[in-house]
Amino acid sequence: MKVKVVTKILEANDRIALENRKLFDGAGIYVINLMSGPGAGKTSVLEKTLNLASGLKIGVIEGDIAGSDDAERIERCGAPVVQINTGGACHLDANMIYEVLSELPLRDLDLLFIENVGNLVCPAEFKVGENIKVMVLSIAEGHDKPLKYPLMFQESSALILNKIDLAPYLDVDMEKIRRDALSLNPKLKIFEVSCKTGVGLPEWIDWLKKQTLKR
Amino acid sequence: MKVKVVTKILEANDRIALENRKLFDGAGIYVINLMSGPGAGKTSVLEKTLNLASGLKIGVIEGDIAGSDDAERIERCGAPVVQINTGGACHLDANMIYEVLSELPLRDLDLLFIENVGNLVCPAEFKVGENIKVMVLSIAEGHDKPLKYPLMFQESSALILNKIDLAPYLDVDMEKIRRDALSLNPKLKIFEVSCKTGVGLPEWIDWLKKQTLKR
Repeated sequence: MKVKVVTKILEANDRIALENRKLFDGAGIYVINLMSGPGAGKTSVLEKTLNLASGLKIGVIEGDIAGSDDAERIERCGAPVVQINTGGACHLDANMIYEVLSELPLRDLDLLFIENVGNLVCPAEFKVGENIKVMVLSIAEGHDKPLKYPLMFQESSALILNKIDLAPYLDVDMEKIRRDALSLNPKLKIFEVSCKTGVGLPEWIDWLKKQTLKR
Repeated sequence: MKVKVVTKILEANDRIALENRKLFDGAGIYVINLMSGPGAGKTSVLEKTLNLASGLKIGVIEGDIAGSDDAERIERCGAPVVQINTGGACHLDANMIYEVLSELPLRDLDLLFIENVGNLVCPAEFKVGENIKVMVLSIAEGHDKPLKYPLMFQESSALILNKIDLAPYLDVDMEKIRRDALSLNPKLKIFEVSCKTGVGLPEWIDWLKKQTLKR
Protein backbone atom coordinates (compact mmCIF):
# COMPACT_ATOMS: atom_id res chain seq x y z
CA MET A 1 0.00 0.00 0.00
CA LYS A 2 2.76 2.39 1.00
CA VAL A 3 4.67 1.34 -2.12
CA LYS A 4 1.62 2.13 -4.28
CA VAL A 5 1.39 5.64 -2.85
CA VAL A 6 5.08 6.23 -3.49
CA THR A 7 4.77 4.89 -7.05
CA LYS A 8 1.89 7.26 -7.76
CA ILE A 9 3.80 10.22 -6.37
CA LEU A 10 6.81 9.34 -8.56
CA GLU A 11 4.62 8.93 -11.67
CA ALA A 12 2.94 12.30 -11.14
CA ASN A 13 6.36 13.85 -10.53
CA ASP A 14 7.77 12.39 -13.74
CA ARG A 15 4.90 13.84 -15.79
CA ILE A 16 5.60 17.35 -14.46
CA ALA A 17 9.36 16.83 -14.95
CA LEU A 18 8.66 16.09 -18.60
CA GLU A 19 6.70 19.36 -18.90
CA ASN A 20 9.58 21.26 -17.29
CA ARG A 21 11.99 19.61 -19.71
CA LYS A 22 9.88 20.74 -22.69
CA LEU A 23 9.97 24.30 -21.36
CA PHE A 24 13.75 24.12 -20.94
CA ASP A 25 14.25 22.66 -24.43
CA GLY A 26 11.98 25.35 -25.87
CA ALA A 27 14.06 28.05 -24.20
CA GLY A 28 17.28 26.42 -25.45
CA ILE A 29 18.67 25.99 -21.94
CA TYR A 30 20.74 23.11 -20.53
CA VAL A 31 19.76 22.03 -17.01
CA ILE A 32 21.79 20.30 -14.31
CA ASN A 33 20.34 18.84 -11.11
CA LEU A 34 23.18 19.29 -8.58
CA MET A 35 23.01 16.94 -5.60
CA SER A 36 25.04 15.95 -2.52
CA GLY A 37 24.85 15.26 1.18
CA PRO A 38 24.78 18.26 3.55
CA GLY A 39 27.91 20.39 3.49
CA ALA A 40 29.72 18.66 0.62
CA GLY A 41 30.16 22.02 -1.10
CA LYS A 42 27.47 22.35 -3.80
CA THR A 43 27.16 26.12 -3.34
CA SER A 44 30.94 26.56 -3.29
CA VAL A 45 31.19 24.62 -6.56
CA LEU A 46 28.53 26.92 -8.03
CA GLU A 47 30.32 30.08 -6.82
CA LYS A 48 33.56 28.91 -8.44
CA THR A 49 31.74 27.84 -11.61
CA LEU A 50 30.02 31.22 -11.94
CA ASN A 51 33.40 32.93 -11.63
CA LEU A 52 35.29 30.63 -13.99
CA ALA A 53 32.81 29.69 -16.73
CA SER A 54 33.17 32.86 -18.74
CA GLY A 55 31.02 32.91 -21.84
CA LEU A 56 28.22 30.86 -20.28
CA LYS A 57 25.11 32.66 -19.04
CA ILE A 58 24.11 30.73 -15.93
CA GLY A 59 21.05 30.86 -13.65
CA VAL A 60 20.48 29.02 -10.38
CA ILE A 61 17.55 27.60 -8.43
CA GLU A 62 18.48 27.00 -4.79
CA GLY A 63 16.68 24.33 -2.78
CA ASP A 64 16.85 24.26 1.02
CA ILE A 65 14.65 23.15 3.89
CA ALA A 66 14.91 26.65 5.34
CA GLY A 67 16.84 29.89 4.89
CA SER A 68 18.22 31.86 1.95
CA ASP A 69 21.98 31.81 2.68
CA ASP A 70 22.80 29.95 -0.52
CA ALA A 71 20.73 32.23 -2.77
CA GLU A 72 22.48 35.25 -1.23
CA ARG A 73 25.88 33.70 -1.98
CA ILE A 74 24.86 33.12 -5.61
CA GLU A 75 23.42 36.62 -5.92
CA ARG A 76 26.76 38.08 -4.85
CA CYS A 77 28.27 36.31 -7.90
CA GLY A 78 25.87 38.28 -10.10
CA ALA A 79 23.75 35.38 -11.34
CA PRO A 80 19.94 35.30 -11.47
CA VAL A 81 18.76 33.05 -8.63
CA VAL A 82 15.52 31.86 -7.02
CA GLN A 83 15.39 30.27 -3.56
CA ILE A 84 12.92 27.46 -2.86
CA ASN A 85 12.28 26.56 0.80
CA THR A 86 10.84 23.06 0.96
CA GLY A 87 9.58 23.35 4.54
CA GLY A 88 10.13 19.80 5.72
CA ALA A 89 10.66 18.08 2.38
CA CYS A 90 14.07 16.43 1.98
CA HIS A 91 14.30 16.87 -1.82
CA LEU A 92 13.12 19.10 -4.65
CA ASP A 93 10.35 17.77 -6.85
CA ALA A 94 9.29 18.74 -10.37
CA ASN A 95 6.31 20.79 -9.22
CA MET A 96 8.43 22.99 -6.92
CA ILE A 97 10.61 23.78 -9.93
CA TYR A 98 7.62 24.43 -12.19
CA GLU A 99 6.24 26.94 -9.68
CA VAL A 100 9.33 29.19 -9.82
CA LEU A 101 10.27 29.01 -13.51
CA SER A 102 8.48 32.25 -14.37
CA GLU A 103 10.86 34.08 -12.02
CA LEU A 104 13.94 33.29 -14.13
CA PRO A 105 14.93 34.79 -17.52
CA LEU A 106 15.18 31.32 -19.11
CA ARG A 107 15.54 32.54 -22.69
CA ASP A 108 18.57 34.66 -21.77
CA LEU A 109 20.42 31.73 -20.17
CA ASP A 110 22.62 28.92 -21.52
CA LEU A 111 22.66 26.84 -18.38
CA LEU A 112 20.49 26.41 -15.28
CA PHE A 113 21.76 24.74 -12.12
CA ILE A 114 19.15 23.35 -9.75
CA GLU A 115 20.89 22.95 -6.40
CA ASN A 116 18.97 20.27 -4.53
CA VAL A 117 18.47 19.87 -0.77
CA GLY A 118 21.55 18.42 0.93
CA ASN A 119 20.66 14.73 1.07
CA LEU A 120 22.47 11.75 -0.44
CA VAL A 121 19.28 9.69 -0.79
CA CYS A 122 15.92 11.05 -2.00
CA PRO A 123 16.98 13.78 -4.47
CA ALA A 124 18.26 11.01 -6.76
CA GLU A 125 14.71 9.57 -7.00
CA PHE A 126 12.92 12.71 -8.18
CA LYS A 127 13.44 14.06 -11.69
CA VAL A 128 12.94 17.82 -11.93
CA GLY A 129 13.29 18.20 -15.71
CA GLU A 130 17.08 18.20 -15.86
CA ASN A 131 19.27 17.07 -18.77
CA ILE A 132 21.78 15.48 -16.40
CA LYS A 133 22.44 14.98 -12.71
CA VAL A 134 25.80 15.91 -11.17
CA MET A 135 26.78 15.02 -7.60
CA VAL A 136 29.33 16.40 -5.17
CA LEU A 137 31.00 14.27 -2.49
CA SER A 138 33.26 15.80 0.14
CA ILE A 139 36.18 13.45 0.70
CA ALA A 140 35.73 14.18 4.43
CA GLU A 141 32.57 12.03 4.22
CA GLY A 142 34.74 8.93 3.79
CA HIS A 143 35.37 6.28 1.17
CA ASP A 144 32.42 4.07 2.08
CA LYS A 145 29.79 6.36 0.55
CA PRO A 146 29.35 4.88 -2.98
CA LEU A 147 28.37 1.42 -1.76
CA LYS A 148 26.18 2.81 1.05
CA TYR A 149 24.29 5.32 -1.14
CA PRO A 150 24.41 3.63 -4.56
CA LEU A 151 21.46 5.29 -6.35
CA MET A 152 22.90 8.81 -6.56
CA PHE A 153 26.18 7.48 -7.97
CA GLN A 154 24.21 5.42 -10.52
CA GLU A 155 22.02 8.34 -11.59
CA SER A 156 24.76 10.97 -11.92
CA SER A 157 26.71 11.78 -15.08
CA ALA A 158 29.54 13.37 -13.12
CA LEU A 159 30.94 13.13 -9.59
CA ILE A 160 32.84 16.10 -8.15
CA LEU A 161 35.11 14.92 -5.33
CA ASN A 162 35.48 18.13 -3.34
CA LYS A 163 37.73 19.30 -0.49
CA ILE A 164 40.73 17.30 -1.73
CA ASP A 165 42.93 19.85 0.06
CA LEU A 166 41.92 17.94 3.23
CA ALA A 167 43.35 14.62 1.97
CA PRO A 168 46.58 14.81 4.03
CA TYR A 169 44.52 15.10 7.23
CA LEU A 170 42.01 12.32 6.52
CA ASP A 171 42.23 8.52 6.48
CA VAL A 172 40.43 8.36 3.16
CA ASP A 173 41.12 5.93 0.32
CA MET A 174 40.48 7.98 -2.84
CA GLU A 175 41.08 4.97 -5.06
CA LYS A 176 38.32 3.05 -3.28
CA ILE A 177 35.88 5.89 -3.93
CA ARG A 178 36.79 5.86 -7.63
CA ARG A 179 36.67 2.09 -7.89
CA ASP A 180 33.33 1.67 -6.11
CA ALA A 181 31.71 4.62 -7.89
CA LEU A 182 32.79 3.28 -11.30
CA SER A 183 31.61 -0.22 -10.41
CA LEU A 184 28.14 1.29 -9.84
CA ASN A 185 28.32 3.51 -12.93
CA PRO A 186 31.14 2.83 -15.44
CA LYS A 187 30.31 5.99 -17.44
CA LEU A 188 30.65 8.32 -14.42
CA LYS A 189 33.00 11.23 -15.08
CA ILE A 190 35.02 12.00 -11.92
CA PHE A 191 36.66 15.33 -11.05
CA GLU A 192 38.93 15.81 -8.02
CA VAL A 193 38.67 19.44 -6.94
CA SER A 194 39.23 21.84 -4.08
CA CYS A 195 37.05 24.92 -4.04
CA LYS A 196 39.52 26.31 -1.49
CA THR A 197 42.72 26.03 -3.57
CA GLY A 198 41.08 25.93 -7.01
CA VAL A 199 42.81 22.71 -8.04
CA GLY A 200 40.83 20.58 -10.51
CA LEU A 201 38.25 23.25 -11.28
CA PRO A 202 39.51 24.03 -14.84
CA GLU A 203 38.90 20.39 -15.88
CA TRP A 204 35.35 20.56 -14.48
CA ILE A 205 34.66 23.87 -16.27
CA ASP A 206 35.96 22.49 -19.60
CA TRP A 207 33.70 19.45 -19.35
CA LEU A 208 30.73 21.60 -18.27
CA LYS A 209 31.15 23.91 -21.27
CA LYS A 210 31.31 20.95 -23.65
CA GLN A 211 28.12 19.43 -22.17
CA THR A 212 26.27 22.72 -22.35
CA LEU A 213 27.32 23.68 -25.87
CA LYS A 214 26.95 20.25 -27.52
CA ARG A 215 23.24 19.99 -26.66
CA MET B 1 -3.85 15.04 -0.01
CA LYS B 2 -0.13 14.32 0.08
CA VAL B 3 -0.02 15.90 3.54
CA LYS B 4 -2.85 13.62 4.72
CA VAL B 5 -0.95 10.54 3.56
CA VAL B 6 2.18 11.70 5.33
CA THR B 7 0.21 12.46 8.51
CA LYS B 8 -1.28 8.95 8.50
CA ILE B 9 2.14 7.37 7.98
CA LEU B 10 3.52 9.38 10.90
CA GLU B 11 0.58 8.46 13.16
CA ALA B 12 0.94 4.75 12.40
CA ASN B 13 4.68 5.05 13.00
CA ASP B 14 4.19 6.74 16.37
CA ARG B 15 1.86 3.95 17.55
CA ILE B 16 4.51 1.31 16.77
CA ALA B 17 7.23 3.49 18.32
CA LEU B 18 5.18 3.53 21.54
CA GLU B 19 5.01 -0.28 21.48
CA ASN B 20 8.78 -0.47 20.99
CA ARG B 21 9.25 1.91 23.88
CA LYS B 22 7.14 -0.29 26.16
CA LEU B 23 9.29 -3.29 25.22
CA PHE B 24 12.46 -1.30 25.94
CA ASP B 25 11.13 -0.07 29.29
CA GLY B 26 10.08 -3.60 30.20
CA ALA B 27 13.59 -4.86 29.46
CA GLY B 28 15.10 -2.00 31.48
CA ILE B 29 17.11 -0.70 28.55
CA TYR B 30 17.90 2.91 27.60
CA VAL B 31 17.64 3.66 23.89
CA ILE B 32 19.34 6.36 21.81
CA ASN B 33 18.43 7.19 18.20
CA LEU B 34 21.77 8.33 16.70
CA MET B 35 21.42 10.56 13.63
CA SER B 36 23.58 12.63 11.26
CA GLY B 37 24.23 13.44 7.63
CA PRO B 38 26.31 10.97 5.60
CA GLY B 39 29.89 10.56 6.78
CA ALA B 40 29.69 12.70 9.94
CA GLY B 41 31.11 9.81 11.95
CA LYS B 42 28.21 8.05 13.72
CA THR B 43 29.87 4.63 13.48
CA SER B 44 33.22 6.04 14.62
CA VAL B 45 31.51 7.61 17.64
CA LEU B 46 29.95 4.21 18.42
CA GLU B 47 33.28 2.37 18.07
CA LYS B 48 34.92 4.81 20.50
CA THR B 49 31.94 4.64 22.86
CA LEU B 50 32.02 0.84 22.92
CA ASN B 51 35.73 0.94 23.79
CA LEU B 52 35.48 3.67 26.42
CA ALA B 53 32.15 3.11 28.19
CA SER B 54 33.32 0.34 30.48
CA GLY B 55 30.61 -0.94 32.76
CA LEU B 56 27.81 -0.36 30.27
CA LYS B 57 26.46 -3.31 28.28
CA ILE B 58 25.68 -1.84 24.87
CA GLY B 59 23.91 -3.22 21.79
CA VAL B 60 23.56 -1.60 18.36
CA ILE B 61 21.06 -1.58 15.51
CA GLU B 62 22.66 -0.34 12.28
CA GLY B 63 20.52 1.31 9.60
CA ASP B 64 21.80 1.74 6.05
CA ILE B 65 20.34 1.93 2.57
CA ALA B 66 22.64 -0.91 1.54
CA GLY B 67 25.62 -2.88 2.81
CA SER B 68 26.79 -4.19 6.19
CA ASP B 69 30.09 -2.34 6.64
CA ASP B 70 28.93 -0.57 9.78
CA ALA B 71 27.61 -3.73 11.46
CA GLU B 72 30.93 -5.43 10.76
CA ARG B 73 32.79 -2.53 12.39
CA ILE B 74 30.57 -2.78 15.48
CA GLU B 75 30.93 -6.57 15.61
CA ARG B 76 34.72 -6.17 15.74
CA CYS B 77 34.20 -4.15 18.95
CA GLY B 78 32.47 -7.18 20.46
CA ALA B 79 28.96 -5.72 20.78
CA PRO B 80 25.74 -7.46 19.73
CA VAL B 81 24.57 -5.83 16.50
CA VAL B 82 21.83 -6.17 13.89
CA GLN B 83 22.03 -4.57 10.43
CA ILE B 84 18.87 -3.20 8.78
CA ASN B 85 19.03 -2.42 5.05
CA THR B 86 16.23 -0.03 4.19
CA GLY B 87 16.44 -0.59 0.41
CA GLY B 88 15.59 2.87 -0.79
CA ALA B 89 14.17 4.38 2.40
CA CYS B 90 16.10 7.39 3.68
CA HIS B 91 15.33 6.81 7.39
CA LEU B 92 14.54 4.10 9.90
CA ASP B 93 10.95 3.78 11.04
CA ALA B 94 9.46 2.14 14.13
CA ASN B 95 8.31 -0.96 12.29
CA MET B 96 11.79 -1.71 10.93
CA ILE B 97 13.06 -1.63 14.52
CA TYR B 98 10.20 -3.79 15.82
CA GLU B 99 11.01 -6.44 13.21
CA VAL B 100 14.59 -6.97 14.44
CA LEU B 101 14.16 -6.67 18.21
CA SER B 102 13.95 -10.43 18.76
CA GLU B 103 17.49 -10.73 17.40
CA LEU B 104 19.01 -8.74 20.27
CA PRO B 105 19.51 -9.86 23.90
CA LEU B 106 17.60 -6.82 25.20
CA ARG B 107 17.38 -8.00 28.84
CA ASP B 108 21.17 -8.35 29.04
CA LEU B 109 21.80 -4.78 27.85
CA ASP B 110 21.90 -1.39 29.59
CA LEU B 111 21.90 0.71 26.44
CA LEU B 112 20.85 0.30 22.81
CA PHE B 113 22.08 2.62 20.07
CA ILE B 114 19.98 2.79 16.91
CA GLU B 115 22.26 4.23 14.22
CA ASN B 116 19.98 5.82 11.66
CA VAL B 117 20.51 6.23 7.90
CA GLY B 118 22.91 9.10 7.11
CA ASN B 119 20.47 11.93 6.42
CA LEU B 120 20.11 15.27 8.18
CA VAL B 121 16.38 15.57 7.37
CA CYS B 122 13.89 12.69 7.60
CA PRO B 123 15.28 10.58 10.47
CA ALA B 124 14.34 13.45 12.84
CA GLU B 125 10.66 13.02 11.87
CA PHE B 126 10.29 9.32 12.68
CA LYS B 127 10.29 8.09 16.28
CA VAL B 128 11.58 4.56 16.65
CA GLY B 129 10.88 4.08 20.37
CA GLU B 130 13.98 5.86 21.68
CA ASN B 131 14.38 7.66 25.01
CA ILE B 132 16.43 10.42 23.40
CA LYS B 133 17.86 11.46 20.06
CA VAL B 134 21.55 12.36 19.71
CA MET B 135 23.02 13.87 16.54
CA VAL B 136 26.54 14.05 15.13
CA LEU B 137 27.73 16.92 12.92
CA SER B 138 31.13 16.85 11.23
CA ILE B 139 32.61 20.34 11.41
CA ALA B 140 33.72 19.79 7.79
CA GLU B 141 30.03 20.17 6.86
CA GLY B 142 30.23 23.87 7.67
CA HIS B 143 28.70 26.30 10.16
CA ASP B 144 25.49 26.91 8.20
CA LYS B 145 23.94 23.54 9.05
CA PRO B 146 21.79 24.36 12.15
CA LEU B 147 19.72 27.04 10.40
CA LYS B 148 19.43 25.00 7.18
CA TYR B 149 18.38 21.73 8.88
CA PRO B 150 16.64 23.00 12.02
CA LEU B 151 14.44 20.03 12.96
CA MET B 152 17.21 17.60 13.87
CA PHE B 153 18.86 20.20 16.10
CA GLN B 154 15.49 20.88 17.76
CA GLU B 155 14.73 17.19 18.34
CA SER B 156 18.13 16.15 19.70
CA SER B 157 19.16 16.10 23.36
CA ALA B 158 22.86 16.20 22.49
CA LEU B 159 24.98 17.34 19.56
CA ILE B 160 28.37 15.73 18.99
CA LEU B 161 30.57 18.06 16.92
CA ASN B 162 32.99 15.58 15.41
CA LYS B 163 36.29 15.84 13.48
CA ILE B 164 37.45 18.90 15.42
CA ASP B 165 41.02 17.85 14.58
CA LEU B 166 40.26 19.31 11.12
CA ALA B 167 39.48 22.78 12.51
CA PRO B 168 42.88 24.31 11.54
CA TYR B 169 42.28 23.35 7.89
CA LEU B 170 38.67 24.55 7.58
CA ASP B 171 37.05 27.97 7.40
CA VAL B 172 34.48 26.99 9.99
CA ASP B 173 33.03 29.25 12.70
CA MET B 174 32.50 26.90 15.65
CA GLU B 175 30.89 29.66 17.72
CA LYS B 176 28.25 30.18 15.03
CA ILE B 177 27.39 26.47 15.11
CA ARG B 178 26.98 26.63 18.90
CA ARG B 179 25.02 29.88 18.83
CA ASP B 180 22.62 28.81 16.07
CA ALA B 181 22.13 25.31 17.50
CA LEU B 182 21.35 26.73 20.96
CA SER B 183 18.99 29.33 19.47
CA LEU B 184 17.00 26.40 18.01
CA ASN B 185 17.26 24.30 21.15
CA PRO B 186 18.49 26.02 24.34
CA LYS B 187 18.69 22.70 26.23
CA LEU B 188 20.98 21.06 23.67
CA LYS B 189 24.11 19.54 25.24
CA ILE B 190 27.11 20.08 22.93
CA PHE B 191 30.29 17.99 22.84
CA GLU B 192 33.32 18.86 20.69
CA VAL B 193 35.16 15.66 19.89
CA SER B 194 37.62 14.03 17.54
CA CYS B 195 37.29 10.29 17.08
CA LYS B 196 40.76 10.42 15.52
CA THR B 197 42.63 12.02 18.44
CA GLY B 198 40.19 11.06 21.21
CA VAL B 199 39.77 14.63 22.47
CA GLY B 200 36.38 15.38 24.01
CA LEU B 201 35.27 11.76 24.18
CA PRO B 202 35.58 11.38 27.99
CA GLU B 203 33.05 14.22 28.50
CA TRP B 204 30.61 12.49 26.11
CA ILE B 205 31.08 9.14 27.86
CA ASP B 206 30.49 10.69 31.31
CA TRP B 207 27.25 12.32 30.14
CA LEU B 208 26.14 9.12 28.39
CA LYS B 209 26.67 7.07 31.54
CA LYS B 210 24.67 9.55 33.61
CA GLN B 211 21.77 9.50 31.13
CA THR B 212 21.74 5.72 30.99
CA LEU B 213 21.97 5.10 34.72
CA LYS B 214 19.52 7.79 35.88
CA ARG B 215 16.61 6.31 33.89
